[in-house]
Amino acid sequence: MKESFGKLDSSSLRIAIVVSRFNEIVTSKLLQGALGVLRRTGCPEDAVDVVHVPGSFEIPLAARVLAQKKEYQALICLGAIIKGETDHDRYLGSRVTDAIGAIGLEFGIPIGYGLVTVDTAEQALDRAGLKQGNKGADAALAAVEMATLLKTL
Amino acid sequence: MKESFGKLDSSSLRIAIVVSRFNEIVTSKLLQGALGVLRRTGCPEDAVDVVHVPGSFEIPLAARVLAQKKEYQALICLGAIIKGETDHDRYLGSRVTDAIGAIGLEFGIPIGYGLVTVDTAEQALDRAGLKQGNKGADAALAAVEMATLLKTL
Amino acid sequence: MKESFGKLDSSSLRIAIVVSRFNEIVTSKLLQGALGVLRRTGCPEDAVDVVHVPGSFEIPLAARVLAQKKEYQALICLGAIIKGETDHDRYLGSRVTDAIGAIGLEFGIPIGYGLVTVDTAEQALDRAGLKQGNKGADAALAAVEMATLLKTL
Amino acid sequence: MKESFGKLDSSSLRIAIVVSRFNEIVTSKLLQGALGVLRRTGCPEDAVDVVHVPGSFEIPLAARVLAQKKEYQALICLGAIIKGETDHDRYLGSRVTDAIGAIGLEFGIPIGYGLVTVDTAEQALDRAGLKQGNKGADAALAAVEMATLLKTL
Amino acid sequence: MKESFGKLDSSSLRIAIVVSRFNEIVTSKLLQGALGVLRRTGCPEDAVDVVHVPGSFEIPLAARVLAQKKEYQALICLGAIIKGETDHDRYLGSRVTDAIGAIGLEFGIPIGYGLVTVDTAEQALDRAGLKQGNKGADAALAAVEMATLLKTL
Repeated sequence: MKESFGKLDSSSLRIAIVVSRFNEIVTSKLLQGALGVLRRTGCPEDAVDVVHVPGSFEIPLAARVLAQKKEYQALICLGAIIKGETDHDRYLGSRVTDAIGAIGLEFGIPIGYGLVTVDTAEQALDRAGLKQGNKGADAALAAVEMATLLKTL
Repeated sequence: MKESFGKLDSSSLRIAIVVSRFNEIVTSKLLQGALGVLRRTGCPEDAVDVVHVPGSFEIPLAARVLAQKKEYQALICLGAIIKGETDHDRYLGSRVTDAIGAIGLEFGIPIGYGLVTVDTAEQALDRAGLKQGNKGADAALAAVEMATLLKTL
Repeated sequence: MKESFGKLDSSSLRIAIVVSRFNEIVTSKLLQGALGVLRRTGCPEDAVDVVHVPGSFEIPLAARVLAQKKEYQALICLGAIIKGETDHDRYLGSRVTDAIGAIGLEFGIPIGYGLVTVDTAEQALDRAGLKQGNKGADAALAAVEMATLLKTL
Repeated sequence: MKESFGKLDSSSLRIAIVVSRFNEIVTSKLLQGALGVLRRTGCPEDAVDVVHVPGSFEIPLAARVLAQKKEYQALICLGAIIKGETDHDRYLGSRVTDAIGAIGLEFGIPIGYGLVTVDTAEQALDRAGLKQGNKGADAALAAVEMATLLKTL
Repeated sequence: MKESFGKLDSSSLRIAIVVSRFNEIVTSKLLQGALGVLRRTGCPEDAVDVVHVPGSFEIPLAARVLAQKKEYQALICLGAIIKGETDHDRYLGSRVTDAIGAIGLEFGIPIGYGLVTVDTAEQALDRAGLKQGNKGADAALAAVEMATLLKTL
C-alpha cells in the first residue's frame, strides 16, 4: 500500500493570493494569516503575488485569470461573507464556493479555500485570528500541502 | 511581493448594462446608481450601452449575447427579486447568480453583480439608494475596478 | 448612450411551447395564457407548436430537442410544481429552473420561464389566471420581448 | 398550431432500468411498478435490461454508461432516499436529481425519474404502491411517453 | 429480461483512496473501514494507494488527478464535515458531493462516496464504526460493486 502526503514546504512554489476588500477588517487579517504561513513554510517573498478584488463575487474571475497563466503552483482565495437581513449571502456563498472548486479542477491547480461565511461580524473575526484560528492561514496551509502532494502523484 | 489593484477609472472602457424591468421602481434606481458611477469614473456617455430585459430570469441570456460580442470590457447586471409567498425567489436568485458568475468566467469579462435579492420591498428600496447604499452603484464600481485590474494581470 | 428594448410583436416569430400535464388544471390555464399573449402580439397560429410532456422533470429534454432544431426564435416552458409532504418539489424546482436557463444560454434562444412553484393548489391557481395574473402569459410576454430584443443587439 | 403528444406504447422500445438496493423494501416495489407499466404498454420482456446498483449515489454513473451505449430509447432510474438525522439526504437528493437530468440532456435520451425523496419510511412506502401511487410506475410512464414523443418532433 | 449485478470481489482491481485529515478521529476510522472491506473482498495490498489531503474541500482535486491517470478501476473518497455555528458546512457539503459525482461521470470511474456530513461529533463517530456502521466501509463496498458491475455492462 502506497501512501502519499503533501509537505508544508513552499520554498519552491510560486503562489498567488486573491483577496477581496469587502469586510476588509476581516479579510486583511486573513491575508496576514496566509502570508504568515507562506513565510513560515519557506516561500520566498518575491514568489508571492497578491491580487485585490472588490468583493467575494469577483474572486473567481481573478482566480481563473491567474490559473490560466500557468505561472503558479497554487492559489489562495480569501473573502468574508457576513449574513445580512436577506438571502444574499447564500447565493453568494454557494456561487463563490462552487466556482473556486471548479476552477481548481479545470486547471488542476490547488486553491486554498479561505472564504469566511458567517452570521455575525464576531464570528468572522473569530475565524480571522481571534478565537477559532485563522481561515486565511488554514487556506494557505491547504494550498501548500496540496501543491507538494500533486507533485508526488 | 507584487500587489495588484484595479482603478476606479472607466474613461477607456466600453460597458454594457443589462437591467430588468420587473420591480422597476427598484431597478430604475439601480440603473441610476450604476450610470452615476460610470459618469463619475470618467466613462464617456457614448461608451455605455443599456439593454432592458423583462425580468431577472432574462438577464443571463442578454449578458451572454453581449459578452460574446467582445466589444465591452465589462458588463453590469441589475435586477430585483423580492420574496413572495413561495420559493420562486430562491430558484430564481440561485439560477441568476450562478449564471451571471459563469458567464463572467466563460468569457473572462468582469460582470458587476447588481441583483437585489430581498424579503420585502422596503429592503429592496434600502439597497437602491435609500439607507443601505445603492447596489447598482456598487456593481458598477466592482465592474470598473475589475476591468482595470485585469489589464494589469 | 444606446438603449435597447424588445417589442411585444410576435408576428414574425416561430415559437414552441413545452407544457407539462401534471397538475393539468393549472398548466392548461398557463397554456391558455401563453397562447392568448401570442395571439394578441400577432403570432400567426401556424407559427406556434405545442409539445405536451408528462411532468416538469421532462420539460428540459423537450425544450432542448426543440432548441436544437433551430426553427424557433423563442420557446416557452410551462409547468406547475406544488409542494407536497416532502422535499421532492425542491429538487425538481431547482433542477428544472437551472436546466431551462442553461438551455437558453447554450443555444442563445429566449425561453419564457413559466414554471409555477408553489406551496398550495390555491397559490397555483392564483398564478394561473385567478388573482395574481397568469404566469403562462408572463412567460410568453418575456419570450416575445427577448426574441425581438436579441435581433437588435 | 401543431400539437405533439407521446404515446403509452413501449412495444418498439428498448429500455434499461437502473435501480438501487439501498432501502430495498421500497426500491423493489418501485421496480415492480416500473416493470408492470412496461408490460402493460407492450414492451417485450427481452427488450428490458435491469441494472442493480448499491445506492442512489451510484445511479447516475450506471445511467450514463447505459446512455452511452445508444442501445436504449429510454432509461428509468429508481431509488429511495429517506431523511435521517443529518443533511446527508439533501446533498444526495440534489446531486442525483441534477445528474439524472443532465445525463438525459447530454445524450438526448428520456430518463424516467423515479427517485423517492422522503422524510419517513412510511412516506416512502406510500409512494411505492401503498397510498400515493407508485413512483416507479410513474417514472416508467414518463419514460415511455417521452421516448415516443421525441420520435414525433 | 437481463439483470446485471456487481460482485464484492476486488481481487483484480486497483483502487485509490482519498482521505482528508480534518476531523481525523473520524476520517481515520473511515479509512480503516474502507481498507478492511478491500482486504476482505480480496484486494491485494499493493493494489491500494492512499492519498492524504488536508480537508474535504481538497478531496475532489486529488480524486480528479487520480482519475486522470486511468490506473485505477475505482476511487474511494473519505471525509467528515461537522456542522459548526455557520453555514460553512453546507457550502462545503454541497460542493464536495457534486464534484465527486461529476468526476465519476467525467471519467466513467466508480467513486465510493464516503463523506460524513453531520451535525455533531457524536453523529460522526456513529457513522465511523460505532453505532450506525462505517460509511468508509460502505463507500468501499459501493466502489467495488460498481467497478465489477461496469465490466458486465
